[in-house]
Amino acid sequence: MAKAGRRPGPSQTREQIIRAAREQFAERGYTRTTLRSVAAAAQVHPGLLHHYFGTKQQLYRDALDLPVDPWEVLTRLLTGTPRDQFADALARQFVSTWRDPIAGARLRAMARRTYGDADATSMARAHLETVLIPRFASALDVPEANVAAALSHLIGLTLLDTLIGVDQLTSLSDEDLVALIAPAISRYLTPGRQPVSRAPHRQHRPSSG
Amino acid sequence: MAKAGRRPGPSQTREQIIRAAREQFAERGYTRTTLRSVAAAAQVHPGLLHHYFGTKQQLYRDALDLPVDPWEVLTRLLTGTPRDQFADALARQFVSTWRDPIAGARLRAMARRTYGDADATSMARAHLETVLIPRFASALDVPEANVAAALSHLIGLTLLDTLIGVDQLTSLSDEDLVALIAPAISRYLTPGRQPVSRAPHRQHRPSSG
Repeated sequence: MAKAGRRPGPSQTREQIIRAAREQFAERGYTRTTLRSVAAAAQVHPGLLHHYFGTKQQLYRDALDLPVDPWEVLTRLLTGTPRDQFADALARQFVSTWRDPIAGARLRAMARRTYGDADATSMARAHLETVLIPRFASALDVPEANVAAALSHLIGLTLLDTLIGVDQLTSLSDEDLVALIAPAISRYLTPGRQPVSRAPHRQHRPSSG
Repeated sequence: MAKAGRRPGPSQTREQIIRAAREQFAERGYTRTTLRSVAAAAQVHPGLLHHYFGTKQQLYRDALDLPVDPWEVLTRLLTGTPRDQFADALARQFVSTWRDPIAGARLRAMARRTYGDADATSMARAHLETVLIPRFASALDVPEANVAAALSHLIGLTLLDTLIGVDQLTSLSDEDLVALIAPAISRYLTPGRQPVSRAPHRQHRPSSG
């Protein structure tokens, strides 16, 4: 680590790295972005990225400006909750975080960016597709499609409840909202409860006639 | 109807009306916006709005630039499908429309506007909350919260499948995707299958101690 990169002020450098990371995550996806490739684009020494962010996942989280690390939350829920209560706990976590005045406001701003802008969408895709969904599926021992389906329900719920904010959901207490959706989430995340093939699914349509 | 409004060229007038409608739907919501109030804001004769749009719902649809009228689609499904196959048909309709190269592209553009921009979000809220969800719930005889929950799942699905586009869903055939989520949708939309109180739900938390 003898060769030092260029060094402007620390907070300026950090911003420069974050900007480069956002661009690369959006363009190359999560897998093909590395601390080293971001360091090169930001024209700083790779050691600085380790210093500021530690891991690629942390850099990604900071680039997304997420108030919570979804994987950290999942891990905590997975280890701290009996499996038959997991879906309930997950739904409760989602509802309370998105309804939280501080964390929720930051998440909603992030969601608006993510859904409103194609670059931000591909950044989210990379992380969901290659990191979050596979890890989650393997930890729960259910097909990845089931995790994606459960996530789609939770994401849609936060959208209708906190971003669009229809009265039919916002008028429910946290507990009633959790009770409403937890059975559907549970169905997706309970092993063996809904057999979905893990094989590639692209079907050939039978030719008619 | 003797008093005529100002009359620029027809397509210019239509655009002027659409712009005024978008503003009003976003600011006042769906219920408090009328053909007459939009005509006043656009400074045209109310008769022109009847001529161009017929009804407030059509004006709303044109203001949203939707390629399909959700209520029209629902009505067709409700009348043409046996009740025990309705959830399946609804999921199939959602998946095929959003995956359609032409209609889907327009819907995705609309979704990006809706989720990305606070004004567009309140425009969507008004219509969902006061028109679509109540009508849908009453046609199906299920609580409005159940319709909102089912919609949230479908909306989240199109988001993950066609807007974010995670591989775990995009790799599924239409039929496999429908088979994956239809049971959850069915559960929300089958009367009596999931009792959820229709009364206002805001709970008072019991004081501890």
